[in-house]
Amino acid sequence: MERRSWTVVGVGGVGGYYGSRLALAGFDVHWVARNDVEHLRRHGLVVTSPKGDVHLTGLAVSGPDDPLPDTDVVVVATKTTANPEVVAWLADRLAGRACTLVVLQNGFDVERPFAEALAGPAPDVEVVGGMSFICSARTGPGVIAHVDYERVTVGAFVPGGVGEAAVAAVVDDLVAADVPTEALTDLVEGRWRKLVWNIPFNGLSVVLNATTAEMVTDPEARALVRSLMLEVIAASVGTGHAVEEAFIDTMFHSTERMVPYAPSMKLDYEARRELELDAIYAAPLRAASAAGVDMARTTALYEQLAFLDRRNRAGG
Amino acid sequence: MERRSWTVVGVGGVGGYYGSRLALAGFDVHWVARNDVEHLRRHGLVVTSPKGDVHLTGLAVSGPDDPLPDTDVVVVATKTTANPEVVAWLADRLAGRACTLVVLQNGFDVERPFAEALAGPAPDVEVVGGMSFICSARTGPGVIAHVDYERVTVGAFVPGGVGEAAVAAVVDDLVAADVPTEALTDLVEGRWRKLVWNIPFNGLSVVLNATTAEMVTDPEARALVRSLMLEVIAASVGTGHAVEEAFIDTMFHSTERMVPYAPSMKLDYEARRELELDAIYAAPLRAASAAGVDMARTTALYEQLAFLDRRNRAGG
Repeated sequence: MERRSWTVVGVGGVGGYYGSRLALAGFDVHWVARNDVEHLRRHGLVVTSPKGDVHLTGLAVSGPDDPLPDTDVVVVATKTTANPEVVAWLADRLAGRACTLVVLQNGFDVERPFAEALAGPAPDVEVVGGMSFICSARTGPGVIAHVDYERVTVGAFVPGGVGEAAVAAVVDDLVAADVPTEALTDLVEGRWRKLVWNIPFNGLSVVLNATTAEMVTDPEARALVRSLMLEVIAASVGTGHAVEEAFIDTMFHSTERMVPYAPSMKLDYEARRELELDAIYAAPLRAASAAGVDMARTTALYEQLAFLDRRNRAGG
Repeated sequence: MERRSWTVVGVGGVGGYYGSRLALAGFDVHWVARNDVEHLRRHGLVVTSPKGDVHLTGLAVSGPDDPLPDTDVVVVATKTTANPEVVAWLADRLAGRACTLVVLQNGFDVERPFAEALAGPAPDVEVVGGMSFICSARTGPGVIAHVDYERVTVGAFVPGGVGEAAVAAVVDDLVAADVPTEALTDLVEGRWRKLVWNIPFNGLSVVLNATTAEMVTDPEARALVRSLMLEVIAASVGTGHAVEEAFIDTMFHSTERMVPYAPSMKLDYEARRELELDAIYAAPLRAASAAGVDMARTTALYEQLAFLDRRNRAGG
């Protein structure tokens, strides 16, 4: 059976890792990078991983100004902070095409601007949402360090429609590439589920300058993490995509087993990059507020992060 | 008219400043210091201030192990973190005496342990609470830097009793020493009023590593400050000592006019001293909780501070 073709937009910790898995499994992978185009063409991509280090060469790489090849799947693995420009760029490049667009990003409702921008010019693009549960990061040009985990979940942005077949095909491809992947029947519930971890640990790792290990062992920090998780659960219930409360214990257990690792938001902060505050905090806060759910602690954490992010990028 | 005699326990930014004002006005002031006893005896006390710099010499200074002179007034101006030992020490030293004890400290319900410990051995000591609205700090042995403000409020710990006369006498003394001072009819309301400022600005100055000026000009930080203030107002209402909501604007205006200044908690954090978390956060949170008032943001801030304080003093 012939492997499908994939385009990976964004060669960071997420795109670089999953793209390399697909390429190793024989998929035709095209890469779109912003800064590392020449480096990737000349030197390829190095991925260090507990599954074995790999060095992929002879990559098909293009930049944002180049034409976009017509592949079966396009996966967006850029930071959500770039979404305004990525959405406009994809709406232009995918006009009139048919493919599956996987929005493999953190946060809440991140598929919506893609789906809305594509509906007119590219009605045959099926938008699906994806989440990666992975500890990995780009540590330099063409170098991805994969530390732990790699599971992916995928769900249709419009449930019950043709997107379900697109989801199944994406799952098949990733499973064929040895990536444990599951289809979600409720993408929004899956996004809330991921936020149960991301809302406390991403933000507090920045505000407290702390590792997840420090946070789960300190009594007050752990209490705060739990309170934030309970707010996310309440929001999931209030918006009709209920996550069960027992999931909190699951998250604590998996965090306790996690190798020491700085959440992506902490890495962004240290590199003075813009934090993914809209996708991970403001968007779920808006959804909760519309459902009448008060997320007081999450709001406070968001406001602290907005202050820190602004000062950090001002060079403060 | 003969001036009354005062003992100032704790020669820091608060005790050093007000004690010097009383001494300059001709009051007989005795000083109790912990670390600076020899320095104060030999070199005296330097207070720099917009009201004029002074250098007081020939001070009567004792240490914690020395006898305590019998004065009309004893003012406790130590950090609340030392209260367990200061309470026990005073209960021993004041046994059988009659005087006014002014607990001039930050926080909530800080007079209670003093009143309870003295009730048996020293029933004639009248406990009053005091609050100082002052920007000042000990910047070295025997050196106090007064930057701005100096107002004091005083109220009886047991309202309506003989304490009211003691309050009036303390006010008279401080006014005679050129310190603007007011008597409070409701000490608890006064303490809530002060917490409207202290709960947001003390804690956030540590967590965000920010000045009050940065916080009031950043939109999200300012929103968070306001939300925290609203929680304190709700707690004051819930406990029957209502502070009016318009007080928030008063606090913002006075903070905007304040000279750049690091709150005392920020200075404590930088010096790796224990933070006054029990008096400023845990005690008011207990009172609010007992009254059925949820202070979610304040709780979150307290938990962040507890984590940071523990790590900071561990040398982290």
